Amino acid sequence: MKTESFFLLKLQAPDRIGLLASITNLIAKHQGNLVEVQQYTSTLDKVFFGRLAFEISGLDKIEELKKNISLLAQEIEAQWTLRDQSVPLKTILLVSKTNHCLADLLWRWRSQELNIAIQSVISNHEDLRSEVEREGLPFHYFPIPQEAALKEQALQQMAAMIRRESAELLVMCRYMQVLPAWLCEEYKNRIINIHHSLLPAFVGADPYRQAYNRGVKLIGATCHYATEQLDAGPIIHQEMLRIEHFHSLNDIRRLGRDCEKLALARGIRFHADDRVLVYDGRSIVFGD
Amino acid sequence: MKTESFFLLKLQAPDRIGLLASITNLIAKHQGNLVEVQQYTSTLDKVFFGRLAFEISGLDKIEELKKNISLLAQEIEAQWTLRDQSVPLKTILLVSKTNHCLADLLWRWRSQELNIAIQSVISNHEDLRSEVEREGLPFHYFPIPQEAALKEQALQQMAAMIRRESAELLVMCRYMQVLPAWLCEEYKNRIINIHHSLLPAFVGADPYRQAYNRGVKLIGATCHYATEQLDAGPIIHQEMLRIEHFHSLNDIRRLGRDCEKLALARGIRFHADDRVLVYDGRSIVFGD
Amino acid sequence: MKTESFFLLKLQAPDRIGLLASITNLIAKHQGNLVEVQQYTSTLDKVFFGRLAFEISGLDKIEELKKNISLLAQEIEAQWTLRDQSVPLKTILLVSKTNHCLADLLWRWRSQELNIAIQSVISNHEDLRSEVEREGLPFHYFPIPQEAALKEQALQQMAAMIRRESAELLVMCRYMQVLPAWLCEEYKNRIINIHHSLLPAFVGADPYRQAYNRGVKLIGATCHYATEQLDAGPIIHQEMLRIEHFHSLNDIRRLGRDCEKLALARGIRFHADDRVLVYDGRSIVFGD
Amino acid sequence: MKTESFFLLKLQAPDRIGLLASITNLIAKHQGNLVEVQQYTSTLDKVFFGRLAFEISGLDKIEELKKNISLLAQEIEAQWTLRDQSVPLKTILLVSKTNHCLADLLWRWRSQELNIAIQSVISNHEDLRSEVEREGLPFHYFPIPQEAALKEQALQQMAAMIRRESAELLVMCRYMQVLPAWLCEEYKNRIINIHHSLLPAFVGADPYRQAYNRGVKLIGATCHYATEQLDAGPIIHQEMLRIEHFHSLNDIRRLGRDCEKLALARGIRFHADDRVLVYDGRSIVFGD
Repeated sequence: MKTESFFLLKLQAPDRIGLLASITNLIAKHQGNLVEVQQYTSTLDKVFFGRLAFEISGLDKIEELKKNISLLAQEIEAQWTLRDQSVPLKTILLVSKTNHCLADLLWRWRSQELNIAIQSVISNHEDLRSEVEREGLPFHYFPIPQEAALKEQALQQMAAMIRRESAELLVMCRYMQVLPAWLCEEYKNRIINIHHSLLPAFVGADPYRQAYNRGVKLIGATCHYATEQLDAGPIIHQEMLRIEHFHSLNDIRRLGRDCEKLALARGIRFHADDRVLVYDGRSIVFGD
Repeated sequence: MKTESFFLLKLQAPDRIGLLASITNLIAKHQGNLVEVQQYTSTLDKVFFGRLAFEISGLDKIEELKKNISLLAQEIEAQWTLRDQSVPLKTILLVSKTNHCLADLLWRWRSQELNIAIQSVISNHEDLRSEVEREGLPFHYFPIPQEAALKEQALQQMAAMIRRESAELLVMCRYMQVLPAWLCEEYKNRIINIHHSLLPAFVGADPYRQAYNRGVKLIGATCHYATEQLDAGPIIHQEMLRIEHFHSLNDIRRLGRDCEKLALARGIRFHADDRVLVYDGRSIVFGD
Repeated sequence: MKTESFFLLKLQAPDRIGLLASITNLIAKHQGNLVEVQQYTSTLDKVFFGRLAFEISGLDKIEELKKNISLLAQEIEAQWTLRDQSVPLKTILLVSKTNHCLADLLWRWRSQELNIAIQSVISNHEDLRSEVEREGLPFHYFPIPQEAALKEQALQQMAAMIRRESAELLVMCRYMQVLPAWLCEEYKNRIINIHHSLLPAFVGADPYRQAYNRGVKLIGATCHYATEQLDAGPIIHQEMLRIEHFHSLNDIRRLGRDCEKLALARGIRFHADDRVLVYDGRSIVFGD
Repeated sequence: MKTESFFLLKLQAPDRIGLLASITNLIAKHQGNLVEVQQYTSTLDKVFFGRLAFEISGLDKIEELKKNISLLAQEIEAQWTLRDQSVPLKTILLVSKTNHCLADLLWRWRSQELNIAIQSVISNHEDLRSEVEREGLPFHYFPIPQEAALKEQALQQMAAMIRRESAELLVMCRYMQVLPAWLCEEYKNRIINIHHSLLPAFVGADPYRQAYNRGVKLIGATCHYATEQLDAGPIIHQEMLRIEHFHSLNDIRRLGRDCEKLALARGIRFHADDRVLVYDGRSIVFGD
């Protein structure tokens, strides 16, 4: 019987003297042993951001700690989460027709590189069904009609399914649809998207073609939270590589895939390990 | 007495069968020995781009070769240049108040990392005079008035001086003025600028602040040819580095300077070694 | 019926005046149209290295060209190969128990990122059988005994199978066995290995542990040709990434896998596109 | 009159529950406001490493805090330093004949990128005297004889001068001499060296030639603390770049200089901002 567990406390609050002391005191008082503390204070915004990983034994102690954190949080006006690290995040992937990010994430998930539990895969096309099902995962086909009312209806059904599965994280793996504002709001900072450019350059459709036409010497991919506004959400991670004049558009697409896979996988990892906090459209990432 | 010289032939022409053979035949016929050949054919645009570095002995042979290249070029509709590598490019630097790119270039120039001969430094401020003059270089102070007619007059005087010095290359080292369209046209693909962002992201003023506000995780600098349209000229080289949430705007500015220095120095080096060709707004860079 | 084909001519020869002209003349004479020419002359060693990609129509013309190249090669003492780019390289993968490079290569192969035809996978363990067979590929189990005579016998049988399949390329995907000198010799510059360090640092066993113990700030992976001497063959490609003090040995292993996958995939791609030439233990790589 | 100051507390101690709480409590009790806290616990070695930057007003408060930290440190068996960030580190540079690192550091020092006060420059050659003196810095010429006893005598004189200047940091800017064990011991973790390879590859003389001969595709530079054993001290920072087959040894040397300059400058910056702790031959770097 496991009696020792790792917990992740993530919080942000208006900065004040003694803030970190109060929090670490509380954890010490409950015999929690800090193994990783990351703190950042935005001196500009006067906001404190922290992530504390600690081990603690006994279920009763953690319940009591939780209650006390709640009390402290009220006092210091903090937003916070406390998570048992041994419980992976319930995650649903959304795909369209290209499979490079999907295949990469499936491998990392099976290899336990990511602290997520993939529940199922949603797609607006049937193309990747067999690739998903051979992993023993449910594949949900939700075609997205063009017509507005029908589209809204399809998205509502999709959202209902997402809620039924109690998904905690949605990952758009080159899912070629824009999610509606109400879904972005409902899953605020819990929908991760990969865009195949170094945002804010080349927003919108076919960014590699835009990059090729502009003649840039560096391309890349951006992992960010989806918001109502296209490609404008908080950036979690970016990867880039150097290209040369002899790279055709197809070469750029091929090379870019490696950036996309890596940027998305790292972004998901940071999120799933509670390493990302968002403030004022920018992300604080206590990376690893 | 030096009898052997290195020459650089750079050319672009509509692609056809036997093009490289014709050129290399010509050089071989004059006893030129190729030491470096770089060729690229845009299969999309059907254009051939080439750079051939060769050694050859005897001034008469090079004159004859030049005549024959000229004949061939007419036949194949080529644009071309032939340069003696031992003669550095006459170069004028333009600066304002910040000196990081200037100091870096002065060091590289003295250390013979760059195949340029700096003739003088132009500035719209007096701040960097002593730094320039202690290197034994003339410093020309050209203040740029706000008022349109006076400004045009000042720029005309500046251009007259540039012509008098027979400058072959102008380098804007964080020169905080936009050069007029007529000067960009006159020195087309011979004015190098450094912009402190990964273009096309963050065009215009204070790109580091824009980058900070958007919360990007990668910043960089872009070395490009100046054109009439701001920050839109052909890109020669880009450098980037990773930043994190804890980097303040000042940190970004500090780190960015290292990118700027490197991107500008490499871009100048490529240009001065005749490694850059421009076609349709994009640059072909036979890097080293 | 396809009448136009792409061919790759790769050659190295003692340098002399007119060498590239002779070769390009020959191709032009047979109506071959050069689409990519890469040339490098080592002025130190006086050796010419070239790669010429060209399109040509008609099978008769290519046969005639081949004969003429052969004659020219004799004259100029060149080593050369001519390959039809549309015929992928017959390739056998060798694996042990870890599957990250395998999974990555299988995906790239299916996605036609690599110009190889995987014939089968060899392993000294049964662990990865199902992962291989579900792709419709034969899996050959060759356990490698400890005892010298038995080991030699097993390796001989393995080699016999490799010959039967007419493999043109062997890829060691974290295959944890040292191949015998006679096999390295037989498949000289046709066995690709991935070593999980920035060679020549950390030769031999458990390089990530060595890296961790030394406290380096950069780790990486090296793709190279296997030779009799462990981890000493010509380097084709290297990938690296930055690590920090908080990265445990397990973190380094996890991060390193991304380097390994990328370095191996790129190395194979360069090899399979005839972009690699070897001279005096060093490789010339006309990258893409 | 400035009444508010920034202080840097750096410490390492055996890990125990409540450690960070005790320290942050102490700072809070003296009205110190934490602006940057970095903590790392090696779970392997059971050691806590921390860096706390805080602002505090009033000289009396800081003296009292210092006393209390001292008491706490005894209790928790900590090694620690407390520094006023506004007082730059007294630094002496050691150079030989090449000036790229020197010129780079002089620029960064003048531009206040580094929190150091350069006191003087020591050299075993006269070559760089004018470059140093024109910055208004003393240049000390200490030739190093070959003969052992004379060499020891010269080094003793040099050390005497270093002590007289109360130097807190020595920086070997491509100083081509090995410092004696007794000096390395006296200035343990306070002598920074730059080695022009990605250590531990290519230890010793002419690492670029070694890199060229081995045919690596990545080169770099390593900033580390000098120890008795050549190129084996704790690594602070590494920079690297990609090279290709066409880069000659001279190209590698030229490109490598950019790595050296950057690696050295960043290593010094980390050290001078009290961001580096050393444990068991490895460095903990709380980078910025």
